[in-house]
Amino acid sequence: MKDKKGIKVATIGGGSSYTPEIIEGFIKRHDELPVKELYLVDIEAGKWKLDIVGSLAKRMVEEAGIDMEVHLTLDRREAIKDADFVTTQFRVGLLDARIRDEKIPLRHNVIGQETTGAGGMAKALRTIPVILDIAKDMEELAPDAWLINFTNPSGIITETLSKYSDIKVLGLCNVPVVMHKMAAEILESDEKDLKMDFVGLNHLVWGRKAYLNGENKISELLDKLAEGDFSDVENIPDYKWSKELLQSLGMLPCPYHRYYYLTDMMLQEEIEAAKSEGTRGEVVKGLEKDLFEIYKDQDLKQKPEELESRGGQYYSDAACDLISAIYNDKGTLHYVNVKNNGTVNCLPDDSVIERTSYIGADGAYPLNVEALPPQVKGLLQVVNEYETLTIEAGVHGDYNAAYQALTIHPLVEGSIVKELLDDIITENIDYLPQFQR
Amino acid sequence: MKDKKGIKVATIGGGSSYTPEIIEGFIKRHDELPVKELYLVDIEAGKWKLDIVGSLAKRMVEEAGIDMEVHLTLDRREAIKDADFVTTQFRVGLLDARIRDEKIPLRHNVIGQETTGAGGMAKALRTIPVILDIAKDMEELAPDAWLINFTNPSGIITETLSKYSDIKVLGLCNVPVVMHKMAAEILESDEKDLKMDFVGLNHLVWGRKAYLNGENKISELLDKLAEGDFSDVENIPDYKWSKELLQSLGMLPCPYHRYYYLTDMMLQEEIEAAKSEGTRGEVVKGLEKDLFEIYKDQDLKQKPEELESRGGQYYSDAACDLISAIYNDKGTLHYVNVKNNGTVNCLPDDSVIERTSYIGADGAYPLNVEALPPQVKGLLQVVNEYETLTIEAGVHGDYNAAYQALTIHPLVEGSIVKELLDDIITENIDYLPQFQR
Amino acid sequence: MKDKKGIKVATIGGGSSYTPEIIEGFIKRHDELPVKELYLVDIEAGKWKLDIVGSLAKRMVEEAGIDMEVHLTLDRREAIKDADFVTTQFRVGLLDARIRDEKIPLRHNVIGQETTGAGGMAKALRTIPVILDIAKDMEELAPDAWLINFTNPSGIITETLSKYSDIKVLGLCNVPVVMHKMAAEILESDEKDLKMDFVGLNHLVWGRKAYLNGENKISELLDKLAEGDFSDVENIPDYKWSKELLQSLGMLPCPYHRYYYLTDMMLQEEIEAAKSEGTRGEVVKGLEKDLFEIYKDQDLKQKPEELESRGGQYYSDAACDLISAIYNDKGTLHYVNVKNNGTVNCLPDDSVIERTSYIGADGAYPLNVEALPPQVKGLLQVVNEYETLTIEAGVHGDYNAAYQALTIHPLVEGSIVKELLDDIITENIDYLPQFQR
Amino acid sequence: MKDKKGIKVATIGGGSSYTPEIIEGFIKRHDELPVKELYLVDIEAGKWKLDIVGSLAKRMVEEAGIDMEVHLTLDRREAIKDADFVTTQFRVGLLDARIRDEKIPLRHNVIGQETTGAGGMAKALRTIPVILDIAKDMEELAPDAWLINFTNPSGIITETLSKYSDIKVLGLCNVPVVMHKMAAEILESDEKDLKMDFVGLNHLVWGRKAYLNGENKISELLDKLAEGDFSDVENIPDYKWSKELLQSLGMLPCPYHRYYYLTDMMLQEEIEAAKSEGTRGEVVKGLEKDLFEIYKDQDLKQKPEELESRGGQYYSDAACDLISAIYNDKGTLHYVNVKNNGTVNCLPDDSVIERTSYIGADGAYPLNVEALPPQVKGLLQVVNEYETLTIEAGVHGDYNAAYQALTIHPLVEGSIVKELLDDIITENIDYLPQFQR
Ligand SMILES: [Mn+2]
Ligand SMILES: [Mn+2]
Ligand SMILES: [Mn+2]
Ligand SMILES: [Mn+2]
Repeated sequence: MKDKKGIKVATIGGGSSYTPEIIEGFIKRHDELPVKELYLVDIEAGKWKLDIVGSLAKRMVEEAGIDMEVHLTLDRREAIKDADFVTTQFRVGLLDARIRDEKIPLRHNVIGQETTGAGGMAKALRTIPVILDIAKDMEELAPDAWLINFTNPSGIITETLSKYSDIKVLGLCNVPVVMHKMAAEILESDEKDLKMDFVGLNHLVWGRKAYLNGENKISELLDKLAEGDFSDVENIPDYKWSKELLQSLGMLPCPYHRYYYLTDMMLQEEIEAAKSEGTRGEVVKGLEKDLFEIYKDQDLKQKPEELESRGGQYYSDAACDLISAIYNDKGTLHYVNVKNNGTVNCLPDDSVIERTSYIGADGAYPLNVEALPPQVKGLLQVVNEYETLTIEAGVHGDYNAAYQALTIHPLVEGSIVKELLDDIITENIDYLPQFQR
Repeated sequence: MKDKKGIKVATIGGGSSYTPEIIEGFIKRHDELPVKELYLVDIEAGKWKLDIVGSLAKRMVEEAGIDMEVHLTLDRREAIKDADFVTTQFRVGLLDARIRDEKIPLRHNVIGQETTGAGGMAKALRTIPVILDIAKDMEELAPDAWLINFTNPSGIITETLSKYSDIKVLGLCNVPVVMHKMAAEILESDEKDLKMDFVGLNHLVWGRKAYLNGENKISELLDKLAEGDFSDVENIPDYKWSKELLQSLGMLPCPYHRYYYLTDMMLQEEIEAAKSEGTRGEVVKGLEKDLFEIYKDQDLKQKPEELESRGGQYYSDAACDLISAIYNDKGTLHYVNVKNNGTVNCLPDDSVIERTSYIGADGAYPLNVEALPPQVKGLLQVVNEYETLTIEAGVHGDYNAAYQALTIHPLVEGSIVKELLDDIITENIDYLPQFQR
Repeated sequence: MKDKKGIKVATIGGGSSYTPEIIEGFIKRHDELPVKELYLVDIEAGKWKLDIVGSLAKRMVEEAGIDMEVHLTLDRREAIKDADFVTTQFRVGLLDARIRDEKIPLRHNVIGQETTGAGGMAKALRTIPVILDIAKDMEELAPDAWLINFTNPSGIITETLSKYSDIKVLGLCNVPVVMHKMAAEILESDEKDLKMDFVGLNHLVWGRKAYLNGENKISELLDKLAEGDFSDVENIPDYKWSKELLQSLGMLPCPYHRYYYLTDMMLQEEIEAAKSEGTRGEVVKGLEKDLFEIYKDQDLKQKPEELESRGGQYYSDAACDLISAIYNDKGTLHYVNVKNNGTVNCLPDDSVIERTSYIGADGAYPLNVEALPPQVKGLLQVVNEYETLTIEAGVHGDYNAAYQALTIHPLVEGSIVKELLDDIITENIDYLPQFQR
Repeated sequence: MKDKKGIKVATIGGGSSYTPEIIEGFIKRHDELPVKELYLVDIEAGKWKLDIVGSLAKRMVEEAGIDMEVHLTLDRREAIKDADFVTTQFRVGLLDARIRDEKIPLRHNVIGQETTGAGGMAKALRTIPVILDIAKDMEELAPDAWLINFTNPSGIITETLSKYSDIKVLGLCNVPVVMHKMAAEILESDEKDLKMDFVGLNHLVWGRKAYLNGENKISELLDKLAEGDFSDVENIPDYKWSKELLQSLGMLPCPYHRYYYLTDMMLQEEIEAAKSEGTRGEVVKGLEKDLFEIYKDQDLKQKPEELESRGGQYYSDAACDLISAIYNDKGTLHYVNVKNNGTVNCLPDDSVIERTSYIGADGAYPLNVEALPPQVKGLLQVVNEYETLTIEAGVHGDYNAAYQALTIHPLVEGSIVKELLDDIITENIDYLPQFQR
């Protein structure tokens, strides 16, 4: 691909408040990754956001003085046609849907989170029909393009595409990136010298080993983490891991593990937050509003600092790095969601895992890994089957699969499954064509 | 084995209130299964029970007029020496330990049950050192004998022996037997015409298919179960399964699935019971007391009716049937706990599963089964890894393994793992030599 | 099925010289297996044989005085319609094709045998289009019927049906039956007391264990076999196994293993036989001619003794036993070709294996088996992949698959693959619609 | 490791005629790979060669003017102590043993080759006791060192160490390197731009894909290979692959595949060569003699050109590259023999495979690979089991395993196994302590 001049990128959900980040990412890398055409695509309902953020994007590119055309469009097919890379950062149903994903489960006294548990399932059910539609366009209009998927639940969406489309796809998440940075901080090492051995599913990923120049420092990392005071992602409360948990686990848990390992505390926290400052979605809705006000300033010609508080830090850096590794056949390691294909031997071959992977122009090779210990294996397996069921429910509108997905999910329990599921379907029915019958 | 005259059986925990059942079982089958010597073994603390129930056993045999010697002994090695079959029905720590298994978890607001969840783990930790000791005696004194294990958690105990001893062992439980009988009742068929395809782990077993003369009646069975009013085991509340749960599951759940599928209701029920009539262990303690009073009656020469309310119905029938199938090389189907060895392809080869199995003089062959659906697979896998960790904790006194076993068990959640585990170890320390250091 | 009155059986290739055996089999079992209608089907080219052997069949039934109608027909669909069991014993291209299967490979200096190696592949390529046609008729006209397949190569044909049709099918072969009888003779035991643990592929099956009342006598069996003088099937020379081979193997090889373990001797023998009395096919052609002369005798009312020298002894007994086990839901052990489904863990789930299996009205459950030793595993695996390739070649007319099937088959070697394959296709082209383009 | 100053390397078999290559390799890379101490070790019988080639090594280093001490020693433990890397290039029994490996099988009319088939097994049996001894020294004296194994059969030796020692080991072979170079030549591309996807076992490795900048050129590669005239390794006749074989295979075979795919031609060639110029071993013996004469020249201060005709081209380059990749944590791709661990899902986890692998300071990660096609799978599996048996025979002196290893090897056939094996053991008995009883 390296010989190709003039890369075309289509960004679906281009009206997102994150767009300045990806613009910055492409500007910074323009020498090694010469994006010539960038299409920001959105839907009618997002046009006002696309206009504001798209205008900022154009100012940023102009300021940078690089040869990149930014196109704003509602015509997805025009954007996808002959693209080299498609990135996704859309949210079906906008932030109001996210707020529902948080509030409906809470109403039934279970964790309400937009990417995992009952809320994650709801988001998957809404997103699957749209992403399969995008994939169909790509199969027709850009069959050689890579889809770099950010859209959550990133693992489930990537697995859906891996199972039900022919496009080339890799899923991304900022969680391993943030964990990498935190680990480097804890080990007082340069980020570049650290090689994290991540393995798991999206938002259920463990840092198995932490290599500094070939030496595994995971024990030191866990000890210091138990003693010190370090923080990771913005959108999840920073409960400290106990020494006993870290030692018995023997790996670095991800921020989302708090939902699994500290369910009661997280549920309590959510219930209280909902009563006071609002759910995370409600908070973000306010942040977004402020951001777009800032974006409107015609003198603003770079990514504003305020974007950091929004959440998904380093997403765009991770995406641009990944795109550049493919384009330049770099042979570097990245943390991606990719078809398992025997890498994690306790999961099916066709599951999508999150794993440290070798990236070249021919795609991603998840690094070989030894058999995982039982504590990791058991949790991975049950969540993986939840994901399998969710995908079947999302693709086929299978009520039974959705029912059982909730039944076995570790964050949903008890006798409320039917009521919970019926609420999810009823209140999201406008976005669930597969259940409209 | 069929040619051998004069079978010797050793029953460990012979002072149990269940003993009259197994005596009745051997009496009924004496023609096909000529038990010549039956050793009832117990420990010093159980001597008073052994004397009472052993005396009843002798009266029963005398009344039946068969050629079987009943020996009462505290010398386990004498009992095991040259035995053909060893059966186990002991409870380490007696009913007081069971009551602790129920009350400690409840104190931390999680399910308290003696065979599953935190209570099941506690019971496993107490039992493993004793069963490995028995196995060592068998390896030395009766290397060709079969151990028929009833002792709970039956699957974990059988798996421990399968992994850490060389003896021949099969695990038994009355749950599939009771489910078989209930299914026959629901289908209005003769028990003998029904072939249940059970698969899973002990106390987490599903009826996958129900064959009447080669035809699979599982849908009819589930429909009628959802509509009708049927009951199963004594010791678990009879909550009715919803039509939605049964249909989406597509299999017959076992009574213990209520803990997994209706956790909130079961926990509430337990909390209330503990406050009123007491936990199940406390109730049973009363029943036992009454039973032994009845057993003392020198005119009693058969199994008294009152034993039925005690719980483990059909245990002894299942055990005697199994022993006879081995002795007579019958080639009949039984529901046993047996090494997986690839039968359930989503579980490790060395796990012990509960499965419809073909039994002959050379042992048990679990029937081949297709890949299980995701809802069953996911739950099985996480509970299997809990079991793996529990066995490691029980055999090696591994605190970390115990910590993670509780962490991933679906019935234990949240931030209370350390306190819960420390309570379990502290309050059972007399029975936990592997943790005494 | 047991409750059904009046079983209907369709025998494809009813004009075969074997037919009197299956007739005898049904007559003997009429009490337990009340076959009411037996359709003997053949094609135009076999009509003269069908008339002769069909007439004998009718005389046999009349002589037996049982209530069974024998129908002779060239209309396969009429025969299959509503049948309960379909059996196959046809040979596409008749004995002349078999003779080609022997002679073409010999011309290229490799083993010429109609069921294994290059000849076996040729026979598979001819048979696959026909058997898939029969399966389509069954799917339409008798979707609940069982196909009991004798047609060689029995394993490959059964696997083809398992992969490419929806019918219920089991494959049969007399080899394990003959081995069972020989083992009983060697162990001086009653056939009924012996339980052979057979595992492998059709015509590549090993006797892993030999149980007499639960005790494994395989070592004794191998020792006596190495010392004594025992014979197995008619159609393969009785070379004696060396003590070293049997001991290092640790299992009982099947007669066809001589082609694999003693290739040079077998090839020499074939070359010499071809020059003197003719290939086995040529010999059989003479035997068949004589048999049909005998069958013509209107006074003959039973299976004539001369049939024994023909080859496939006990085939029909095995088939009738199997049919009765299904019909009567017997729960007995039979040696069948059945979908692997994890039984032999070194072969794919969708391969068809030959294995001791539990048979009931709901079909066959191959008995669970531990991991096989490397010497068995390696040979099984390479021959299994040859079979996989042959099936792809047979179903899709895939020249490349056929080329590689011959390339990796242990009995074909070297630089002659192209010439050999081209000869096979050219000289069988009338029977190979999938290659006619 | 990168921070360590003064690398120590021990080369076992330092008296080999190959030594000038590895010396040259270290000299060329001295900037990035600062070898400070190089120990050339040999045994008494090889002292005269060590003196000659060691002296040349010293002259080469002096001429290069780098800071590297070359030590010559017969004390292996001194050499291994605290080494960072150990390389092996010894041949147990010297060239006379190799000549036996060629001639004994030929005597029985089967392929005689020192690394595969019967000859390869003989070489493995001789080498295994020695390599395990070296591993023991390393476990004691240099537990963190890497063993880079060249000694043939490289895959079997590496697998033996992986299974029966605790040292870190990678196996190397020049075959993939030579294939890479030939592929680059065929595709008229720069070697550096080409990424070969190699998979298989040592000396049975296929080029599955050939990427030029992310595009798979394997079809073009095979087409051009079938048409053109290209040569690979020195020591195997350059028979041309037929178009049909290459197309049906769909991958690039390795030079050693000629023994498997063209057995008859290769056997004929060997028989004729043995009669005329001698076996390859006899030819090499002559070449070696000449080489040592050249090495004696005190004016020679570089690797002489004549070494190229000796055989293993690029071995040393591959080794030095690999060592540098580990030392410098390079994250580059290399072709190595490494524990399978699920990479090739049709082979056991503990087999050692030959595979394109990602190399860093923490070792090798074989790149993930999809399920292999049946033709490759079948051959791989049977040869892998031959290897498994050979290792058991070599480690435990297990005659039965050796017998079955030969029985199932595709290059050994028929009734001569016992005679062949007995000849191998008898004529190598001085080097087979495990069989001396
Ligand atoms: Mn994420
Ligand atoms: Mn139970
Ligand atoms: Mn056969
Ligand atoms: Mn090599």
